[in-house]
Amino acid sequence: MKKLIIASTSTVHGKGYLEYILPELSALFKGIKEILFIPYARPSGISHDEYTKIARGAFAKIGIDVIGLHEFKNPIEAINNARGIFTGGGNTFLLVKQLYDTKIISTLKNVVENGIPYFGTSAGSNIAGLTVHNTNDMPIIYPPSFNTLGFINFNINPHYLDPDPNSKHMGETRETRINEFHTLNSIPVLGLREGSWLYVKGSKIVLKGDLFARLFEKGKQPKELPPETDLSYLM
Amino acid sequence: MKKLIIASTSTVHGKGYLEYILPELSALFKGIKEILFIPYARPSGISHDEYTKIARGAFAKIGIDVIGLHEFKNPIEAINNARGIFTGGGNTFLLVKQLYDTKIISTLKNVVENGIPYFGTSAGSNIAGLTVHNTNDMPIIYPPSFNTLGFINFNINPHYLDPDPNSKHMGETRETRINEFHTLNSIPVLGLREGSWLYVKGSKIVLKGDLFARLFEKGKQPKELPPETDLSYLM
Repeated sequence: MKKLIIASTSTVHGKGYLEYILPELSALFKGIKEILFIPYARPSGISHDEYTKIARGAFAKIGIDVIGLHEFKNPIEAINNARGIFTGGGNTFLLVKQLYDTKIISTLKNVVENGIPYFGTSAGSNIAGLTVHNTNDMPIIYPPSFNTLGFINFNINPHYLDPDPNSKHMGETRETRINEFHTLNSIPVLGLREGSWLYVKGSKIVLKGDLFARLFEKGKQPKELPPETDLSYLM
Repeated sequence: MKKLIIASTSTVHGKGYLEYILPELSALFKGIKEILFIPYARPSGISHDEYTKIARGAFAKIGIDVIGLHEFKNPIEAINNARGIFTGGGNTFLLVKQLYDTKIISTLKNVVENGIPYFGTSAGSNIAGLTVHNTNDMPIIYPPSFNTLGFINFNINPHYLDPDPNSKHMGETRETRINEFHTLNSIPVLGLREGSWLYVKGSKIVLKGDLFARLFEKGKQPKELPPETDLSYLM
């Protein structure tokens, strides 16, 4: 049975990396000694080694070892042997390019659908949806496709931001961007604010954390959903 | 000889559509009665007709007619016959997809390189650069390529935003995103703040407007450039 945590962000303001969500990760990866880390999104362009070190430092606090996918000669085999998987944030386009270049995408989908627990933050949550159409990232590299893993049957907009009523900036708000998407596409988009996450178990999806999330569906008014909302009907 | 205005935004806070830049447009399109408008970027998903009407309203104030590219059966012929061209902002991915789908991209490059005056705002300025790698837009549709017109030999980041020191948001700043790009690519990126534009005449490029612009070059510290800076060396 599928088990995932799909988080808006790795880090909430004023706390350390993954600190706010460590108890949940303890539960998700219960009984697992070592998880596989996918460092491909390289936030701020840091190396795979540096990024894996950061993830390792956080998971050490809950007694779980972390090994980077880049440390394996055969990444498909590494995915097949993993007991748990974490994909960190950074640039979604770079992450997706690497998922295709290393040809792990179908294997990754397969193991997670078959019960290997998966944790994603930010870009790692974007790829849990159907496509990367709703990332906030800059398209710094051209991936061979915008299709992703589809662990859930809708898309995530991580780091969801409400419009600032005092802003004098004329660039599009997040809501405008998502509405533009819905003039072309009917995939629902869930705006997950920083500190929110989805807990997925089998076909059940529940909104977690203290904040409301904002659901955008084509042709409907956006809805504010309170914590503990059951989103399984979107599955 | 090439003549272009490449603007960060169509609209500055508190003014009407194109209002801040109408005197410059009068000069750019001097002696031209009608310009061709490329409405493909569809801001907020508005129709080609609606968008063309907005552009028409603004240009009417300086005695210039506007006709939408979508009004022509043969868009390549329309580009070839245009006396002046304006590409409006909206979603860069949608704009680029349409440029490729309608097969106008090489014709558009050709006529502008040969002296047909070109005005771009936001997404219409992104495509004046080498690639769309530095757009801020959401990738709502998959274009067949990220390569664009290359009227200038670098990229624009329109609506450039400085980091907000009081922000509690953990998403990447604009500067972080551009730096991530430079871990993969060496194309210079000019962050154009709202109200700035580039005036291009032949091989000369000058920064215009009242604001500084921020230049990012791979492996160098970003530079703040004052108005009237000559950027021809990037050509």
